[in-house]
Amino acid sequence: MNQQTVNSDDLLNNLTNVKGIKCWGAHTGIKSMRRDLAIIYSEQPANAAATFTQNDVVAEPVKLSRKHIADNHAQVIVINAGNANAGTGEQGYQGAEAMAGTTAEALGIDQELVLVASTGLIGEPFPTGDIVAGIKENIPKLSDSPKAGSFAANAILTTDTFAKEGHISFELDGKEINIAGIAKGSGMIHPNMATMLAFIVTDAAIEKKLLDRTVKKAVDRSFNMITVDGDTSTNDMVAVLANGMAGNKELKSEQDPHFARFEEHLSEMLMHLAKLIISDAEGASKFVEYRVTHAKSYETARKIARAVSDSLLVKTAMFGRDPNWGRIIMAAGNAGANFDAKTVDLYMGNDKELVQVLEKGTPKDFNKNLMKKLLRESHIRVHMALNTGQEEATAWGSDITTDYVMFNSVYTT
Amino acid sequence: MNQQTVNSDDLLNNLTNVKGIKCWGAHTGIKSMRRDLAIIYSEQPANAAATFTQNDVVAEPVKLSRKHIADNHAQVIVINAGNANAGTGEQGYQGAEAMAGTTAEALGIDQELVLVASTGLIGEPFPTGDIVAGIKENIPKLSDSPKAGSFAANAILTTDTFAKEGHISFELDGKEINIAGIAKGSGMIHPNMATMLAFIVTDAAIEKKLLDRTVKKAVDRSFNMITVDGDTSTNDMVAVLANGMAGNKELKSEQDPHFARFEEHLSEMLMHLAKLIISDAEGASKFVEYRVTHAKSYETARKIARAVSDSLLVKTAMFGRDPNWGRIIMAAGNAGANFDAKTVDLYMGNDKELVQVLEKGTPKDFNKNLMKKLLRESHIRVHMALNTGQEEATAWGSDITTDYVMFNSVYTT
Repeated sequence: MNQQTVNSDDLLNNLTNVKGIKCWGAHTGIKSMRRDLAIIYSEQPANAAATFTQNDVVAEPVKLSRKHIADNHAQVIVINAGNANAGTGEQGYQGAEAMAGTTAEALGIDQELVLVASTGLIGEPFPTGDIVAGIKENIPKLSDSPKAGSFAANAILTTDTFAKEGHISFELDGKEINIAGIAKGSGMIHPNMATMLAFIVTDAAIEKKLLDRTVKKAVDRSFNMITVDGDTSTNDMVAVLANGMAGNKELKSEQDPHFARFEEHLSEMLMHLAKLIISDAEGASKFVEYRVTHAKSYETARKIARAVSDSLLVKTAMFGRDPNWGRIIMAAGNAGANFDAKTVDLYMGNDKELVQVLEKGTPKDFNKNLMKKLLRESHIRVHMALNTGQEEATAWGSDITTDYVMFNSVYTT
Repeated sequence: MNQQTVNSDDLLNNLTNVKGIKCWGAHTGIKSMRRDLAIIYSEQPANAAATFTQNDVVAEPVKLSRKHIADNHAQVIVINAGNANAGTGEQGYQGAEAMAGTTAEALGIDQELVLVASTGLIGEPFPTGDIVAGIKENIPKLSDSPKAGSFAANAILTTDTFAKEGHISFELDGKEINIAGIAKGSGMIHPNMATMLAFIVTDAAIEKKLLDRTVKKAVDRSFNMITVDGDTSTNDMVAVLANGMAGNKELKSEQDPHFARFEEHLSEMLMHLAKLIISDAEGASKFVEYRVTHAKSYETARKIARAVSDSLLVKTAMFGRDPNWGRIIMAAGNAGANFDAKTVDLYMGNDKELVQVLEKGTPKDFNKNLMKKLLRESHIRVHMALNTGQEEATAWGSDITTDYVMFNSVYTT
């Protein structure tokens, strides 16, 4: 992540830096003390794309938003925290419809342009009345002030310990383009999108089907490459709105000379938010980057990076600052990617220094004291070169700590 | 598991109860204090079948044993603990060959009749000399005494806290048939066979290809349905020797009138050993049975039982005695089995009592104090009825505790 390009400083990283975007975040009473309702609104209807949870059990807002995004258009996203509206059946679906209907009516727009999302406890009745009242009360407060963007970022959190935001600005075709986003994560974060929400807005003009393809690819390489504990939730959603208000000539195909630059920055934003989620993983003490290079295909590299970052034994070794390359090799062997340990160079360390522990599959006699020192840092890097090709992939994960177990053993009770 | 049929009492549960089986277990010095070499020998060459790890990275003894078992014949199994002989390359493969060659020579049998297995640390040079000397010294001690069987059961252990054995005896076709087995498990136990070894011997006469099919099916429904932490190791192996010395008419096909009874008892033995492994999982405090019934296919039931037993969030909830049905439903939704929560009845509790928490997908207002009391037991049961058919499957797992994390964070260092 290049911190020179993505800005995540307080009040500088706002959704409201994007032209035409207004936000608000408010307390409606679903949660006892914190803001629990966020609204992200574009003055102009936007091209839009979203990816949703792959769990067979799907929350009610996901069902509704899938319908509303089918035409790749949206203008507003309404999110509540504190109640997941999952396992709530017909009552919950009607609640999601009420969220969308109330928002559309208050803004005077078509209901199909409203996306809804929820996060919080599963299986509790959905407090439709409180949320509908909250929407009516807060739509008039929509604002493009930095404070408003910050309120929205805070209102989508559950067990998160900090708001996750980012903003990036660059020139395209002589126009200033902005991309900004917010996310929530914390517990149950996993590839294929766990209890994880991210909302990204841009003022770039981009054709809707091209946006759809670009978002899906970027999600695969960011949010689907992070893992805390391997479960995917019922509510996950990543949505991107592109309202075109930057005034650039609409990007129409992958061959457009300006497309690569837009794609690069959109991916950068998604990776930035994904990494912030990992940094705030419940009960984790370390952020670990697993980079697999020199693979014969992207898919091979991806599978191995994911399998290693997903391995509970690797995660516990990271907590113990244990350079246990045997577990890393074993996890790679479980990836279903025809892994051959004999060609592998493996390095471990941190952002400052990497130490080689395997050379062509053979253990190297590395400096164990230096390694212990390196693994004491909170940002750890594992680099595996397969030496069978030129492709690469990166996954990000946390460690598993005794605190993680304590935290997750007492969630409902 | 029916404790009336499978005997696991000390010294009554011995491999040596099986006709023609002699064993020994000895200390050769690979491990500092404990027995580390086991030999299981059949006086007559046996029909044999084995399943091995599905990890892409495979230990050297697995490579050799795969070759030797290809004809479904074996007469002796030699196992060392303390060194996994994995990641050891040519030196390790030659070590495995030396284990087999020395054993064959000492017994005066064909080398192809020797199966070898190893368990312990990965990536350490294989101590071929010590093991070869140990084999030579201990082959003459092979004995059919109960003590000899117990020595073998103890010599295959690593971090296990107790030896895992079982014996069952029944009549078939007027002959007394014995099945006995030993296993090791502890860390890294998972479906598809983690760091897990099991060796089963029987005096039944059964045709070799029928034995092969029967063993593979029984392994799928026992060892492949247990999980601690989701990693599969480089060394896993389940081998079954059937020497025919009971004198029954050889079982030749699934249609044989006596086959079902043999299959039932063989499966029972494998499940017995699999459950003992879970009971001894590193740092676990609970044994949990996940039974999925009324599924439209065995495969559906199996996938869901596995996914739920595999879920880290379910495991931590079990540690916390938390009847968190939301996590169970979410894990089931991640099974890739077209799970529909709306038809599900879910029950939780222990061996004495089950309490219904969901009825057709809707939460029931159960007695939370009673539930907390039930979940305090060390044997927990979760029963999910899908109500879409008549098939069922069961998986077994442990919880994840703070001790588990501590234990696994400091393995090599």
